[in-house]
Amino acid sequence: MKTKFNFAKEIIREAGAFVKSHMIQELDIEEKTRFDDLVTNLDKATQDLVIGKIKQAYPDDHIMAEENGVYHPVSDGHVWVLDPIDGTVNFIVQRDHFAIMLSYYEDGVGQFGLIYDVMGDTLYSGGGQFDVYANDKKLQPYQDVLLNRSLIGCNAMMFADDYHGIKELVQQSLGVRIYGGAGISMAYVLSGQLLAYFSHIQPWDYAAAKVMGEKLGYVLLTIDGKEPDFKTRQKVMFVPKAKLATIQQYLKP
Amino acid sequence: MKTKFNFAKEIIREAGAFVKSHMIQELDIEEKTRFDDLVTNLDKATQDLVIGKIKQAYPDDHIMAEENGVYHPVSDGHVWVLDPIDGTVNFIVQRDHFAIMLSYYEDGVGQFGLIYDVMGDTLYSGGGQFDVYANDKKLQPYQDVLLNRSLIGCNAMMFADDYHGIKELVQQSLGVRIYGGAGISMAYVLSGQLLAYFSHIQPWDYAAAKVMGEKLGYVLLTIDGKEPDFKTRQKVMFVPKAKLATIQQYLKP
Repeated sequence: MKTKFNFAKEIIREAGAFVKSHMIQELDIEEKTRFDDLVTNLDKATQDLVIGKIKQAYPDDHIMAEENGVYHPVSDGHVWVLDPIDGTVNFIVQRDHFAIMLSYYEDGVGQFGLIYDVMGDTLYSGGGQFDVYANDKKLQPYQDVLLNRSLIGCNAMMFADDYHGIKELVQQSLGVRIYGGAGISMAYVLSGQLLAYFSHIQPWDYAAAKVMGEKLGYVLLTIDGKEPDFKTRQKVMFVPKAKLATIQQYLKP
Repeated sequence: MKTKFNFAKEIIREAGAFVKSHMIQELDIEEKTRFDDLVTNLDKATQDLVIGKIKQAYPDDHIMAEENGVYHPVSDGHVWVLDPIDGTVNFIVQRDHFAIMLSYYEDGVGQFGLIYDVMGDTLYSGGGQFDVYANDKKLQPYQDVLLNRSLIGCNAMMFADDYHGIKELVQQSLGVRIYGGAGISMAYVLSGQLLAYFSHIQPWDYAAAKVMGEKLGYVLLTIDGKEPDFKTRQKVMFVPKAKLATIQQYLKP
């Protein structure tokens, strides 16, 4: 597993270098479901690059990935989960604040996860049998902090619509932060910059953070407290296990 | 003026180094008006450090600053405007995503402004007779982009409360970003990462961005389109002058 983990760290950094070297060019932008659901030629090229490398090294492994309907269920065998560019809108508009995410599951059990903040050049990696690092800094397990000394990360529309009474939770905290990317936001949870993160996301958006988070005392659950299905887009929360009851107290059913 | 501008660049970087070297220590945190309006010993120490240096070099100049009621009106003579740590909550919780802001006015006319993103080590500086730079990269004047290909920065409560119908504006864009600091957010406007920024802020929060913005085609106005008063906390917008009419179209009176 160590070899596979090192391989993953190597290819995700290579993918980051690929994105960086190509993003100065004009991007070819397509709308997926509506005007603000976008994909670029670089999302697809990066996905192809990473899948190519995995297939070359591990020809029998399977892939679940964001673009082009590449979907193998995570519960079945050796499965890599890939989001080639998470935070595509940030990538297009800001050329910053996006991430590449990769994780590896065996029969539904997370073995390791990686979130690469490309422009910040910070690789969050670990989970399963591996300690979690931000580059060469070992991350510590969650240590209790007060809600009123914490910040909450949230999807903009869930905050605006006061989904399940999330505004009340935010009002008990020092405030909300909206960064526009699940990867970056969940990396900030892992590093203690955010207490928790709420969003409406797909399996490839949470698979990596979930594996790393479990190693550090966090859980990734649907808003009503169930395990995510790894199939559909769901409203989820990424929160410290020790703070779950406190947080649930503020969420309306 | 060149000498004064260089002096400002020097002392703001010194202040940044001071904050960085002291922030590993436990902070002494005080509540100002309520539990989420915070100040630390380092906000005050940084302000004292910068004021000391200005008073030593320019003993006849005046100061308007955030902490301890240091307030000389910007319209009267040679006035430095200082926010020693902008984004204090980010500073406390994240030890990141905060800025030091400094600007210099003569009889109410902005001569130059500086926003220093301390942890990102990026100094935005210029305005008046000086071109605007992010470190050694010259920033270009605003070039038109479509609202539906842009991001909007906003204060969390103004967004949550749909202040002047701001949600409608956000819905025409690619989304809202809430970073929790006026300095960082307005620097992102200057660099083109955000189209505009809306917030409820004090003179020391907008004085630096206003001077730099005017050089690049941006205006800093109250939500109803007036010049800010440089006296009280006001709801303001920092927007491209060429986009003002489009933006005002979505804001309800």
